[in-house]
Amino acid sequence: MVVQIGKIQVGGPQFTVIAGPCSIESETQFRTASEGVKKSGASLLRGGIWKMRTSPKAFQGLGSSAFEFIKKIKAETGLGLVSEITDIRQVEEISSFVDAFQVGARNMHNYSLLKDLGKQPKPVVLKRNFSAYIDEWLNAAQYISQGGNNNIILCERGIRTFEKATRNTLDLNAVVYAKKHSQYPVLVDPSHAIGISDLVSPLCYAAAAAGADGVIVEVHPKPSEALSDADQALSLEAFDKMMNQLKKVLGAFDRTLTMA
Amino acid sequence: MVVQIGKIQVGGPQFTVIAGPCSIESETQFRTASEGVKKSGASLLRGGIWKMRTSPKAFQGLGSSAFEFIKKIKAETGLGLVSEITDIRQVEEISSFVDAFQVGARNMHNYSLLKDLGKQPKPVVLKRNFSAYIDEWLNAAQYISQGGNNNIILCERGIRTFEKATRNTLDLNAVVYAKKHSQYPVLVDPSHAIGISDLVSPLCYAAAAAGADGVIVEVHPKPSEALSDADQALSLEAFDKMMNQLKKVLGAFDRTLTMA
Amino acid sequence: MVVQIGKIQVGGPQFTVIAGPCSIESETQFRTASEGVKKSGASLLRGGIWKMRTSPKAFQGLGSSAFEFIKKIKAETGLGLVSEITDIRQVEEISSFVDAFQVGARNMHNYSLLKDLGKQPKPVVLKRNFSAYIDEWLNAAQYISQGGNNNIILCERGIRTFEKATRNTLDLNAVVYAKKHSQYPVLVDPSHAIGISDLVSPLCYAAAAAGADGVIVEVHPKPSEALSDADQALSLEAFDKMMNQLKKVLGAFDRTLTMA
Amino acid sequence: MVVQIGKIQVGGPQFTVIAGPCSIESETQFRTASEGVKKSGASLLRGGIWKMRTSPKAFQGLGSSAFEFIKKIKAETGLGLVSEITDIRQVEEISSFVDAFQVGARNMHNYSLLKDLGKQPKPVVLKRNFSAYIDEWLNAAQYISQGGNNNIILCERGIRTFEKATRNTLDLNAVVYAKKHSQYPVLVDPSHAIGISDLVSPLCYAAAAAGADGVIVEVHPKPSEALSDADQALSLEAFDKMMNQLKKVLGAFDRTLTMA
Repeated sequence: MVVQIGKIQVGGPQFTVIAGPCSIESETQFRTASEGVKKSGASLLRGGIWKMRTSPKAFQGLGSSAFEFIKKIKAETGLGLVSEITDIRQVEEISSFVDAFQVGARNMHNYSLLKDLGKQPKPVVLKRNFSAYIDEWLNAAQYISQGGNNNIILCERGIRTFEKATRNTLDLNAVVYAKKHSQYPVLVDPSHAIGISDLVSPLCYAAAAAGADGVIVEVHPKPSEALSDADQALSLEAFDKMMNQLKKVLGAFDRTLTMA
Repeated sequence: MVVQIGKIQVGGPQFTVIAGPCSIESETQFRTASEGVKKSGASLLRGGIWKMRTSPKAFQGLGSSAFEFIKKIKAETGLGLVSEITDIRQVEEISSFVDAFQVGARNMHNYSLLKDLGKQPKPVVLKRNFSAYIDEWLNAAQYISQGGNNNIILCERGIRTFEKATRNTLDLNAVVYAKKHSQYPVLVDPSHAIGISDLVSPLCYAAAAAGADGVIVEVHPKPSEALSDADQALSLEAFDKMMNQLKKVLGAFDRTLTMA
Repeated sequence: MVVQIGKIQVGGPQFTVIAGPCSIESETQFRTASEGVKKSGASLLRGGIWKMRTSPKAFQGLGSSAFEFIKKIKAETGLGLVSEITDIRQVEEISSFVDAFQVGARNMHNYSLLKDLGKQPKPVVLKRNFSAYIDEWLNAAQYISQGGNNNIILCERGIRTFEKATRNTLDLNAVVYAKKHSQYPVLVDPSHAIGISDLVSPLCYAAAAAGADGVIVEVHPKPSEALSDADQALSLEAFDKMMNQLKKVLGAFDRTLTMA
Repeated sequence: MVVQIGKIQVGGPQFTVIAGPCSIESETQFRTASEGVKKSGASLLRGGIWKMRTSPKAFQGLGSSAFEFIKKIKAETGLGLVSEITDIRQVEEISSFVDAFQVGARNMHNYSLLKDLGKQPKPVVLKRNFSAYIDEWLNAAQYISQGGNNNIILCERGIRTFEKATRNTLDLNAVVYAKKHSQYPVLVDPSHAIGISDLVSPLCYAAAAAGADGVIVEVHPKPSEALSDADQALSLEAFDKMMNQLKKVLGAFDRTLTMA
């Protein structure tokens, strides 16, 4: 099944790369990141406007102060934007410039939110909760679709296991299982899944080789200065190198990157 | 720290037993359960008005059709009621007859909901998500308290592990750890934690012996006919037997049950 | 079913406390610990002669240099000794003064060792591997019993989960489940299960309240100087205090400590 | 670092495929499997002589009755054999015809066995225990190498997590992490990792794309009749198809299959 985000088809024969910073931190940061990932072949932007943080005292995102420059940068690059919402009241505020709403791992079990998203038309990127059974994840999609919105894209982003050396454990089993048992496109977020920037690229290749429909990758112009998830963001140079190798992996399956 | 639910003090020297059905299914079922648990010494009622179910097709609770008889039964028994909410829009509807709002495991990471609950005065029973680090759980409480509402009660209800023989894994380590590192009262929900009714009672005794401030126990007049969680509900007879032994365990620590 | 370790009956109406240091480090350390735990009511000694360590460079135990003084201290105190073996070739060396062989969590799946232990007569304390399904644990016991040795005692010592604040996660569900589904006595090792010394005592009480047949507790005359597991050992004073409260908890179930 | 198994170099620029049945069940079965996987490009054979089974009553392998025909089939195909041992006493029996000893997941923490294997010269394929921290796995290798045998190959085969839809959870994070932090070659066993035969192939591609040094794959001439692990074995046809696609994936990285 193909789900359309702006002009981009996700879930068809091509492979979609969604890239950008964890948090949108400033106009300059977001513009540099967006222009960079576009140049390397990304089809869509990602970027957090409001952030879910374990501590209420951590940086919570720019919120509405970023709206105007986000619109400008979208117009300049011509790329669509995927951004997380955590409350249905945010939808109205940002629906004029966000092309797909992401439900983060922490809200996958927030069925009230899912039901509300089922009553609006924009695509929803539904991340798997870090401890959701695959079947719960697929069932969560039904909470959206039963409201009438079938524009759903699944995204595996790593699960919680006993292992501590990596941030989470990427569960590619879940990706191949979901591809078999669900009609929706399945993406992989290797950045959250491992949390170690120099190990993100091989996981992108693995995701493509396993048959995922795309990846969501955190890219930051200056990773060490990122206000959130600094350890896992790729630099623009590392992202560009990754994209070159990724194209070769896709070529082994007669696939290409999504073209806008 | 003591948190007051109606007339009941939770977190003081006494031990609080909150009991009742998983879902409120009918006036008769809820009245029988409420009268029964009161007779055996429960201090507060529990009962779901809206249910969080993995599948949107499963029984979702009676909703507003139960409001009137709930009020009646509360008046008859004189017991306060703890009930789960999953959306801040529910608070207004039920605040006239619910004495504490429970945030279920699936919504512990729903920080929007927690912030909203911080702005209202009623006590919040914050269940630990089945894969939340203890520190995330304690931090989640801050999302409530920073809004001004410090009436928070923590509740451990079992975590997800590799083990499949039991529904979840009761984490009593988390209870003793939270008692040491947090100021809030800590309850245990052994029913969800093990999911096997004849093994619930020994876990109640263990919770008391470990120093928990109380338990939340699922009790159903006819467990085998329960519309949700049938495998883990105690019958009224089993609950009564459990309460008798529980009093002896508390006596070993010079504690008693909470008196209304 | 009752299993006899020396003069002590494990699995009957009484509750057995096995206590002593993680590693036997010196004659003085082991004598002080042994005399101390005896005075407080322990029925059996524990103490490692060879240690399983993650790194081969860590302290591996005193080995044969400790044999003579262990015999002396056993004679002085009159207490039996439970000690871990990791290789069947160790059995002959120590069987003259060890009263029960412990199979550690790391060797629960070492079926060769279990089969060998099934062909000798001494009791075996079979710890649950930190990621063994309960059913695997019960099946592992069969690897011993099919050789002819039915003197088996199970011991839960914590499992590996996502949680990092505690060393392992004590799984009391497994204890009550094993009590129901297995004929063998079931012990709890709260020291390894939580790994934080001041939280060990409440878990001992919880184990007793849940219906375990006993506990294995790490006690060290000077915990901070222990060569292994320093963070989780009780001092003799803390152990004595724990034993006094434990007797009260057992009293709530009309139980007492095992008498030699 | 390159480790030699017979004539085959593991850990160099080429990618090694080790294939064959879970258990060696009969001369016909093993010959058909061996000839088949050779024809499709496998470099080494796998096959269990003694099996580790959860229940002592399950099929435990052919043992010594298979020795003669194994030698014959090895001579016919010219391929080396990797086979699991569970006890050091097995080494002498099979060292004349087994080219590398596998330590299964259940014995990774059996340090006695690892030490013994360090004192003999043949290569050891060290599987990661299903709940071993990556660091424990790397440390386990030291238990072998400190005895003098540095011919060690690591193998990730899936870990135990909360997920139940797949047999284990393949941890490719661990593969890229071990490649970075260890000198030893790292293989992947996708068959055990997912336990569902039609999902094994995409995981082979993912392993290659992530940079693993090879895969160990279960192949059976008639998967549905396999005496162990029937659900996860590839047929010879499925294996052949997988190998063709695998070569393309390796080509994207300028790699090829190991040539004998």
